[in-house]
Amino acid sequence: MPKVKFTPQNKEIQVETGTNLLKAADQAGLYIEGDCAGRGTCGKCRVRITGDERAEPTTAEKKHLSEKDLDNGWVLACQRTLDRDIVVEVPIQKDAHLRKTTLAGGVEELTAEPMVEKIAVKLDRPAVKDQRADLERLLDNLERPDLDIELRELAGLPALLRKNSFAVTAAITGSRIISVEAGDTTDQIYGVAFDIGTTTIMGSLLDLKTASVVAVAATTNPQNAYGADVISRITHASESRENLKQLQDKVIEAANMLIKDLLKQTRVARDRVYEVTAVGNTTMSHLFMGIDPTYLAPAPFVPAYRRALEVEAARLGLRINPAGRVTFLPNIAGYVGSDTVGVILATDMDRRKDNCAAIDIGTNGELVLAANGRLMACSTAAGPAFEGAQIKHGMRAAGGALESCDYIDGEFKMGTIDDLPACGICGSGLIDAAAALLDAGLIEPSGRFVNPEENPEKVPEQFRERLRPGRNGFEFVLVSAGDSANGDDIVLTQGDLRELQLAKGAIYAGLMILLKEAELSEDQLDCILLAGAFGNYVRKESALTIGLLPQLPPEKIIAVGNAAGDGSKLALASKTVRERAMALPDRVEHLELSTRSDFQDIFIDAMAFQKPKS
Amino acid sequence: MPKVKFTPQNKEIQVETGTNLLKAADQAGLYIEGDCAGRGTCGKCRVRITGDERAEPTTAEKKHLSEKDLDNGWVLACQRTLDRDIVVEVPIQKDAHLRKTTLAGGVEELTAEPMVEKIAVKLDRPAVKDQRADLERLLDNLERPDLDIELRELAGLPALLRKNSFAVTAAITGSRIISVEAGDTTDQIYGVAFDIGTTTIMGSLLDLKTASVVAVAATTNPQNAYGADVISRITHASESRENLKQLQDKVIEAANMLIKDLLKQTRVARDRVYEVTAVGNTTMSHLFMGIDPTYLAPAPFVPAYRRALEVEAARLGLRINPAGRVTFLPNIAGYVGSDTVGVILATDMDRRKDNCAAIDIGTNGELVLAANGRLMACSTAAGPAFEGAQIKHGMRAAGGALESCDYIDGEFKMGTIDDLPACGICGSGLIDAAAALLDAGLIEPSGRFVNPEENPEKVPEQFRERLRPGRNGFEFVLVSAGDSANGDDIVLTQGDLRELQLAKGAIYAGLMILLKEAELSEDQLDCILLAGAFGNYVRKESALTIGLLPQLPPEKIIAVGNAAGDGSKLALASKTVRERAMALPDRVEHLELSTRSDFQDIFIDAMAFQKPKS
Repeated sequence: MPKVKFTPQNKEIQVETGTNLLKAADQAGLYIEGDCAGRGTCGKCRVRITGDERAEPTTAEKKHLSEKDLDNGWVLACQRTLDRDIVVEVPIQKDAHLRKTTLAGGVEELTAEPMVEKIAVKLDRPAVKDQRADLERLLDNLERPDLDIELRELAGLPALLRKNSFAVTAAITGSRIISVEAGDTTDQIYGVAFDIGTTTIMGSLLDLKTASVVAVAATTNPQNAYGADVISRITHASESRENLKQLQDKVIEAANMLIKDLLKQTRVARDRVYEVTAVGNTTMSHLFMGIDPTYLAPAPFVPAYRRALEVEAARLGLRINPAGRVTFLPNIAGYVGSDTVGVILATDMDRRKDNCAAIDIGTNGELVLAANGRLMACSTAAGPAFEGAQIKHGMRAAGGALESCDYIDGEFKMGTIDDLPACGICGSGLIDAAAALLDAGLIEPSGRFVNPEENPEKVPEQFRERLRPGRNGFEFVLVSAGDSANGDDIVLTQGDLRELQLAKGAIYAGLMILLKEAELSEDQLDCILLAGAFGNYVRKESALTIGLLPQLPPEKIIAVGNAAGDGSKLALASKTVRERAMALPDRVEHLELSTRSDFQDIFIDAMAFQKPKS
Repeated sequence: MPKVKFTPQNKEIQVETGTNLLKAADQAGLYIEGDCAGRGTCGKCRVRITGDERAEPTTAEKKHLSEKDLDNGWVLACQRTLDRDIVVEVPIQKDAHLRKTTLAGGVEELTAEPMVEKIAVKLDRPAVKDQRADLERLLDNLERPDLDIELRELAGLPALLRKNSFAVTAAITGSRIISVEAGDTTDQIYGVAFDIGTTTIMGSLLDLKTASVVAVAATTNPQNAYGADVISRITHASESRENLKQLQDKVIEAANMLIKDLLKQTRVARDRVYEVTAVGNTTMSHLFMGIDPTYLAPAPFVPAYRRALEVEAARLGLRINPAGRVTFLPNIAGYVGSDTVGVILATDMDRRKDNCAAIDIGTNGELVLAANGRLMACSTAAGPAFEGAQIKHGMRAAGGALESCDYIDGEFKMGTIDDLPACGICGSGLIDAAAALLDAGLIEPSGRFVNPEENPEKVPEQFRERLRPGRNGFEFVLVSAGDSANGDDIVLTQGDLRELQLAKGAIYAGLMILLKEAELSEDQLDCILLAGAFGNYVRKESALTIGLLPQLPPEKIIAVGNAAGDGSKLALASKTVRERAMALPDRVEHLELSTRSDFQDIFIDAMAFQKPKS
């Protein structure tokens, strides 16, 4: 069986002959970038085989790798199967320095109103005249004789009482004692709020006594190995029970890694964490709970459930107090998940009185409109363009990503995250670049690059070299090889512009449909809230320039940060907020856009870069 | 590592050098008779080592085995450790043909009122105009939108619905769907009622639609390997968490074996069994649930809990429908368990109007008195004498056990179970034999054998040989070597009589204390119910002769069979009965006898064989 060693991570594993290299990396616990689930179409799983002869390139490799790369041992991991011992160099994972996002960036404040209640008691010792059972003795002291108790805690109760002079603390959720602890531990009540993104998983440790965030951590969603988008993952999960289990195991494993990190940062004991809340899109919610998501993919996009699911931590394998409760907030529809519920909670949309739209652009785009006491939501296949997928040099918002682009005095000024040498372009950079190129007149309203041969007068001298023919149409060199991190030109292609047009057109059209249903014109909107890490970094002016948003005064467009994740924290901190969450699936009107002809009409118009007719 | 092969079971295992032979047999899954937890005091774990030289006998072996036995390779398994390969002959397990006990021998009839409800539905298919989630669709059809659902069932719901044209059956317990099944399965609702005895475990499979018992099975409680009495088992469990786990695993394993047998007999599918009820003494209840029983042993005999525990089958490892519910009925006190609750249910003592006492003699003796609307209970250390333990040739009521003895025309007439050659004496045989020997004048009221040397006139000619000096006082040969199964004399010793006196004295005294508390004389008793397999077979006349019971007309003494087990079945069949059970811990007044001086006084008087002063 061949061995494969990964550097610089220095991980080595032995695999069956014929194992795919991408799979082998996954088995070794490494994440290799990629968006196409190993189909060879995205070209992102570049790795370098060192100390071995040059392999015969596959069609996919010929398409995505230069001759020079191939000579230097670069391959696409998805194209290689293992038949002998090799050493593989994996480029440094870009998400190692994920751009930091703000905490509680939404409108709401955290309120301390935990589900878990703790009561410390000191019991009388048993005697022949008082033969009460240990449990009855405890419940009598708690003045809650009808409480239920976790079997595990009852099992150890007799010894615990006697080792601690009958002084213990009970942790109670609802009508159930989930933990009995030695002495007085009433000051220790913790919980973890997760935001399970398709791409990134974020966790926050909260001190529930004070409703304060005491630590945060984030990691890539390791389900990425099975495709960047939810459809790839649904497809994988639908193939077998084992696949579904695999996807569930991946996300639970990642959540456990984050928990470990959070506990290490704060030295909080695992058993003192009694609660987990999570938000995510409906597919993430199904996969986290191990529930068959198959029928989310084809029309009519039916989820297995919408309600919040509450499960014992031990049952899911989440390593907090084993009797702790894990609550995945409710979904609204197949493509409007509990992440949207989180946005609604964080932005108070279920209670606010103004006319307000919220847009959360993650791997999918969800939109909510609060108007005249109604709450409406829809989702659009905005696509993962804003997260860098389907974009030639797209990448997530991590160190070295082009994140801004200005057209000033006839020149483009570029900015990268952490000011590192550019290695790709992230969502906000993509929008900025398109807006800047529009400003510079290099892109036509239709979305085509100006043809420098046909219209040389439209292309200033200094851009003649940079606007060049590519594989499909023209492409513009944003950063030249000499200035980039990997020595290649970083370009914006005609294809990239098309992806951007599809994405921004879908979001704009979705918003128009919501307004139409509410019988509201865009002028009547009091505000548009931009949620998600992306929303935080996109420049309003650029978004307005490319027509992603209707033409509102910029002060009415407000970035609210990771509102979905904030919703998870709000629901963790307060049971009242959680009750509000539970009510949302029945309260929010869901509009299915895919079959509406009015949506298609607006969408087609909205793809152009000119300000759409409203 | 030495290998040991057990015949005739033909099981072979390899063990560490120095492993105790009793432990090795346990590891091989064999049950070897024994009452003393391997201390070498009961002498019952006789096995024969074949094809090896005679071992040097230990003190315990010298005490319990004859020279002839030792020459033939007989040893006590508990005294032997393994240092080489051997073949061990294990005598046929006596419980292989346990005496059959009646079903529902109590007063009550089974009523079909199952906890589990089944509803068959046919759902509309989803459409773009009806995107309801699968779960909501199901609940809408059940007209129970607030039902909870087992995660496992939700996980498989989408595929199940679509594979079965959206026609399914939901099994519901309380507010929870525990199973969703293809097609219409409303006619299949099964449950198992267990009676977890210290010595024997019995299981009955009930068709809960009709409340009929469709199969029964029984097996030895494999915890026997850790001692015949509850104190030995509590001691073992208290030594470590692993030991407690071991005892739990043993009983769960035995229960699973019975379930397998019941399903095999009836061809009922495992997943169609949704409920288990169990009764047992308080120690059995703790061990079954894996709960620390340590403080049941020392005064003040405090249990961890009294209430009924309801646990998911999968959690306990019981192999029925994994979401099925296992309910261990409530205990009343440390030594008055749910077996007594079962007796009360089966004999209707919580509702009947007469003055009625019930006595359940198992390994311990529990007594209940219903009088003037009050219910009182106590337990006595009757000891395991009635189950054959502590009795020289004692054995359980199985094939070959002496079960009856009459003194007619100057001769003793013996009867054995299944008319097999006698191999020991069981509880009913012991009482009969003592009564017959009292009738024959061979036992004095004090409990001593008549001394044939001092009072030769009291010992008829024909018994001169049979009443002979033993190790401690005299002994009487009940069956001579020539007529017995194993070629040894079967005797009743002075020590056996002492054990019998202690046991019957304790029960009689316990009953007197209950009557005293109720301010009732024994004449005012309308009936005495004898519960348990033992109660079914003991002859009332003999019980009256030896003074086990007060001198009531024999027609007022009624055997009610295995009432504890019947109570388990009644509670399984009917939720109303189960509710009655739940109320009993608070309703029954428990009397602690161990510290009452009035109990000690009556007990000492009641040990004599003369009719006690009342």
